[in-house]
Amino acid sequence: MTSSSARSGNLMDFLDEPFPDVGTYEDFHTIDWLREKSRDTDRHRKITSKSKESLWELIKSLLDAWSGWVVMLLIGLLSGTLAGVIDLAVDWMTDLKEGVCLSAFWYSHEQCCWTSNETTFDDRDKCPQWQKWAELMTGHAEGAGAYVLNYFLYVLWALLFSFLAVSLVRVFAPYACGSGIPEIKTILSGFIIRGYLGKWTLLIKTVTLVLAVSSGLSLGKEGPLVHVACCCGNLFCSLFSKYSKNEGKRREVLSAAAAAGVSVAFGAPIGGVLFSLEEVSYYFPLKTLWRSFFAALVAAFTLRSINPFGNSRLVLFYVEYHTPWYMAELVPFILLGVFGGLWGTLFIRANIAWCRRRKTTQLGKYPVLEVIAVTGITAVLAFPNPYTRRSTSELISELFNDCGALESSQLCDYINNPNMSRPVDDIPDRPAGPGVYNALWQLALALIFKIVITIFTFGMKIPSGLFIPSMAVGAIAGRIVGIAVEQMAYHHHDWIIFKNWCRPGADCVTPGLYAMVGAAACLGGVTRMTVSLVVIMFELTGGLEYIVPLMAAAVTSKWVADAFGKEGIYESHIQLNGYPYLDVRDEFTHRTLATDVMRPRRNDPPLAVLTQDSTTVEDVEALIKDTDYNGFPVVVSRESERLIGFVQRRDLTLAIKNARQKQDGVVSSSVVYFTEDAPQLPASNPQPLKLRRILNLSPFTVTDHTPMETVVDIFRKLGLRQCLVTRSGRLLGIITKKDVLRHMAQMMNQDPESIMFN
Amino acid sequence: MTSSSARSGNLMDFLDEPFPDVGTYEDFHTIDWLREKSRDTDRHRKITSKSKESLWELIKSLLDAWSGWVVMLLIGLLSGTLAGVIDLAVDWMTDLKEGVCLSAFWYSHEQCCWTSNETTFDDRDKCPQWQKWAELMTGHAEGAGAYVLNYFLYVLWALLFSFLAVSLVRVFAPYACGSGIPEIKTILSGFIIRGYLGKWTLLIKTVTLVLAVSSGLSLGKEGPLVHVACCCGNLFCSLFSKYSKNEGKRREVLSAAAAAGVSVAFGAPIGGVLFSLEEVSYYFPLKTLWRSFFAALVAAFTLRSINPFGNSRLVLFYVEYHTPWYMAELVPFILLGVFGGLWGTLFIRANIAWCRRRKTTQLGKYPVLEVIAVTGITAVLAFPNPYTRRSTSELISELFNDCGALESSQLCDYINNPNMSRPVDDIPDRPAGPGVYNALWQLALALIFKIVITIFTFGMKIPSGLFIPSMAVGAIAGRIVGIAVEQMAYHHHDWIIFKNWCRPGADCVTPGLYAMVGAAACLGGVTRMTVSLVVIMFELTGGLEYIVPLMAAAVTSKWVADAFGKEGIYESHIQLNGYPYLDVRDEFTHRTLATDVMRPRRNDPPLAVLTQDSTTVEDVEALIKDTDYNGFPVVVSRESERLIGFVQRRDLTLAIKNARQKQDGVVSSSVVYFTEDAPQLPASNPQPLKLRRILNLSPFTVTDHTPMETVVDIFRKLGLRQCLVTRSGRLLGIITKKDVLRHMAQMMNQDPESIMFN
Repeated sequence: MTSSSARSGNLMDFLDEPFPDVGTYEDFHTIDWLREKSRDTDRHRKITSKSKESLWELIKSLLDAWSGWVVMLLIGLLSGTLAGVIDLAVDWMTDLKEGVCLSAFWYSHEQCCWTSNETTFDDRDKCPQWQKWAELMTGHAEGAGAYVLNYFLYVLWALLFSFLAVSLVRVFAPYACGSGIPEIKTILSGFIIRGYLGKWTLLIKTVTLVLAVSSGLSLGKEGPLVHVACCCGNLFCSLFSKYSKNEGKRREVLSAAAAAGVSVAFGAPIGGVLFSLEEVSYYFPLKTLWRSFFAALVAAFTLRSINPFGNSRLVLFYVEYHTPWYMAELVPFILLGVFGGLWGTLFIRANIAWCRRRKTTQLGKYPVLEVIAVTGITAVLAFPNPYTRRSTSELISELFNDCGALESSQLCDYINNPNMSRPVDDIPDRPAGPGVYNALWQLALALIFKIVITIFTFGMKIPSGLFIPSMAVGAIAGRIVGIAVEQMAYHHHDWIIFKNWCRPGADCVTPGLYAMVGAAACLGGVTRMTVSLVVIMFELTGGLEYIVPLMAAAVTSKWVADAFGKEGIYESHIQLNGYPYLDVRDEFTHRTLATDVMRPRRNDPPLAVLTQDSTTVEDVEALIKDTDYNGFPVVVSRESERLIGFVQRRDLTLAIKNARQKQDGVVSSSVVYFTEDAPQLPASNPQPLKLRRILNLSPFTVTDHTPMETVVDIFRKLGLRQCLVTRSGRLLGIITKKDVLRHMAQMMNQDPESIMFN
Repeated sequence: MTSSSARSGNLMDFLDEPFPDVGTYEDFHTIDWLREKSRDTDRHRKITSKSKESLWELIKSLLDAWSGWVVMLLIGLLSGTLAGVIDLAVDWMTDLKEGVCLSAFWYSHEQCCWTSNETTFDDRDKCPQWQKWAELMTGHAEGAGAYVLNYFLYVLWALLFSFLAVSLVRVFAPYACGSGIPEIKTILSGFIIRGYLGKWTLLIKTVTLVLAVSSGLSLGKEGPLVHVACCCGNLFCSLFSKYSKNEGKRREVLSAAAAAGVSVAFGAPIGGVLFSLEEVSYYFPLKTLWRSFFAALVAAFTLRSINPFGNSRLVLFYVEYHTPWYMAELVPFILLGVFGGLWGTLFIRANIAWCRRRKTTQLGKYPVLEVIAVTGITAVLAFPNPYTRRSTSELISELFNDCGALESSQLCDYINNPNMSRPVDDIPDRPAGPGVYNALWQLALALIFKIVITIFTFGMKIPSGLFIPSMAVGAIAGRIVGIAVEQMAYHHHDWIIFKNWCRPGADCVTPGLYAMVGAAACLGGVTRMTVSLVVIMFELTGGLEYIVPLMAAAVTSKWVADAFGKEGIYESHIQLNGYPYLDVRDEFTHRTLATDVMRPRRNDPPLAVLTQDSTTVEDVEALIKDTDYNGFPVVVSRESERLIGFVQRRDLTLAIKNARQKQDGVVSSSVVYFTEDAPQLPASNPQPLKLRRILNLSPFTVTDHTPMETVVDIFRKLGLRQCLVTRSGRLLGIITKKDVLRHMAQMMNQDPESIMFN
């Protein structure tokens, strides 16, 4: 043990961070997971050995061990609280577009009539305290004038909200726009984007999310909530040096925070953890799984104690169905899956094309105007249709709902057979009344509207999630299909397909279930979630009963969408923005070898290397100035090219700057050496500079014959920044993560220049 | 592309498997995950390029792509069916120990009285068709004689069943014993144990599992069901060369099969997938997650359509509670967690000590006698106590149950207040009647009995799972605590702790919930499951309501147990058996370097290497004969020691055997060369033998300065068999998985000699 400690002494010197900032990363650079991990192990080792010294150190080590759980608890509490506040504020502001509560202006429509004594059960949403704007201003609640005034004020409020949202984002926190999930995926894979998860982003995103959702745009709060939760995670990381000083450990916390975000978005803690595992995270050890689950649960229970929906339900859309589904119904479910897959493909292609246009043309220069224009169009088109006027989550909720006997919705306007009296929950199939046919038309129009407007909305410079609009599209399509099947079954009991399972007077088709299946299919088509999607839906219904329909639709939708292109919306946006993200799911199956990818290429100048004991400070400085590589291999000599180690550019710059300032005798002509002992130099030479402590003596190497699929695998699993290529110990070249990504893009016939960062 | 294909041609030659068995593994050896993966990519590449040639090849490629889903479907169907058959058979045979159904002898007690018309609601389990043995033989159902006769026959049947079980295992399939989970973990981590998942094991394990559970021994069917499901997986792998010929791909299927196993064991598909992810699997890519979920669902639904419990419930223990829990109850829940952790520690230590004794003393030579003796003791002690006489799952079911108004169980013998009339489901707290006090005594005795007997049962030469006995211990303890708290709350409403939440006449304590929490705590203490445990329990209750108590108990139990030793029962058994298992969860935090671990050590003979063009066939054969290494590094020459590649022992043996048989001119003095071109040799020399195609040109290397924590990480994440150690391109030594394991054991002060296999 002693011998090894002595030998590793130099490495330890380096890890002790002898001068500030050594071992940190620059903005838009990739972290080295192995280095982060080994730094953490070292820190842990130090604390453990110290803990035996005194009681105080023991307490400190215990606190350190518990800090992970404390951070999770704090994340859960804060993100649950924020989600509750957002829900309440959105509720109030959405209703503000239509009217105001006279008894207390801070009440939403529902709260207003809830607290009122004059509310009757039949007209739950009408009470004298709640007045529409026209009624308040002119005194007339009905009539064309009132309608126009209400219409005008609805549009005006929407424009005001969205203008505020986009202005706040532009002025205070440009990173607060979008859903944030593509960036969080990239950050979790080891990329540094400073400020993306900052306090300022947290604050602005929370506020503008409320504004954006209330403005009635076709967007949801789920993606941004993940971003908000990750900001909380980052915030609490800074409390503990264990997390704030280690980019690898920080990412463990962020993974858990993402789970908490989804948990509060849907009230689905298990689904949230699986979403983080499946969709967002890159490095997800089992310890993180357990902690994510804890954070997700705390967040969900915090949200429930705030109880923003006033029904003490945890989940966003609580549904209870009373009839089972039948095998024959799998056909429409699978058709909904196909629809979901097609919608996913269409949406991704159209949205990416539009976003590319925004990036490359004049359009991108006027984000405020764009938001205003889209909000105006949305509000003007949305108001006349009752299904688009209300908030999208209310719409989904109504579409998911099963028609009980007490339902007053237009969608439940079935013709009652007065001869039948049944218990409340067992409503037999009935012919559709005029309300249902009316609703069908309005829903069809709403579907087209949602499909088109969502393409233009996602990607604007305001916080915008995609879950809710996607689910809305699916839910509308599903409900339409559901009603169609229901009416077909009612009017054609004798058809062979219905004969077996649908007797007259029985309740055999649940249109709400179709809406739910459609929502799952569309969400799956857009995001390509699989297990997490089904589990979230399972947590919404709380029964295994309906997992098969959901799964059939999700599988079909994914297969159909995958046939047109493997990437989900998040991966597409990552690619569009050129983030260096190495997808775990892309299979690299080409026959290339490391030698085909490494630099220098055949006609390039030779690799920029340092020698172990013959480069001068001047040479090093020139090399740093002339190149922009992140680091340099160190070899024995230029002739033998035998690899000794690897030194980071940043460390080198800092070390030389430090030495020039503090170390006497170090001048431009000083020799830099990386060996244990100083080289034998003539006495006239200036004092040499020893830099062994910043030398990484265990750089990662592969041979030139290594297949690229193995190299890709190694990069992915070990989270490398670069890898040196050798043949029989001779250094041949270097492969960086950027090279790997560029090569993969090339092999898949994509534009390799789109990868911009290092 | 062309150049690289040409260059990699040799590798491809090798992958074409030029002679049989190249690229396969020997029994009790570790697979090379990277090699398996690259072989699969190659196969995939070949199929994809061929698919463009003809329609038939296209169909073949589609079939290949779908084979994964087909295998999952088949696994789900078969394991669901087997689980159903096992459940039915166990039910019947357990009852056979007590009596027989006269109307149809293949009916279990419940089925018998169910089909009878003479069953009354009050006496659901009594009907004239069902006769106890004494009644059938002597005509007297009551009395001391009948009791003794029933007692005697109960023991006799138990002995018969267990004798049959152990004999079948001994004679036909020795691998069918135990729970199988430690071995499956090891296999999934990349170890080969031929026959462990064979057809014969499948058949015998299924039959003996029924016998073992029916014999009344303190064991469960959950672990063995995972083994059975994995055997199904292995069986269906052999249908598709994609899986049968690739050990890596096969393990993906086995991971999914494990999920299906847990899914049918508990009726918890999501919990099953998480169990596979958390507890069993080693390499679990996202694709596997989705497929596992599919297999788990299919299995669960197959089981439900068989409907072995006759209640069309999916889950093993269905519970519904009617009252919420209160914050103050967290104290007893956490105490149950502590109990669970202590039980886990006690059980693991005692069981491992007993198993070690079995391995090292005469005891191990008489497995049949041991089983007979333990069965005899179990049956003799179990019969008098009604809580141990019945099957353990029935016991757990009763303990979990909430006392409704219609419950006839002794545990629900509360004193009714005739003045109160309440709806059926809202039973207020009441004083315990004599039945409850009686039950408490019997439960306390049952608890002690279960604790002791389980230690001796687990590890015998019959199929034995640990989930059910662990849960039983916890459920008994939990129910006792629950009743105690309930009675305390009833008799001391005025105590401060009860004042706030427990008014007189209210239903405030649910003893069944305590049983469930206790079961989770004990299971967690023994297996150290975390997320999967909570999710399985969540799927049993189907409500998020009770997740906090379960989680509090699970966390406490894990922390308490971890304080005494990090390893769960499965890891302990892996260690006891010396399987080469590299646990993902063990953190290696010591400061050693690769140079401290590599062989040869300081005073050892030099490393056995081959030179690239100067070794003769004779030398190679001598090397193979004299050493037992799995492979040999190939260097340029003994002087320079520059590494060229690595060659597997098995491939070398096969290649030379093959060449000697088929290639003219290859004799003992032929030179073996690994270079592209044959070396320049005098004309008198015999024809040289080119072996480049079996040479791995991209062996994995690290430098001697690499910290061991990084090496351990690389071994884990990339699934290596061995890794070569170099310094500036010079080969210094080799580190095998065995070396890593031995070093880890040494660092943790364990017996390094316990790792037996390679």
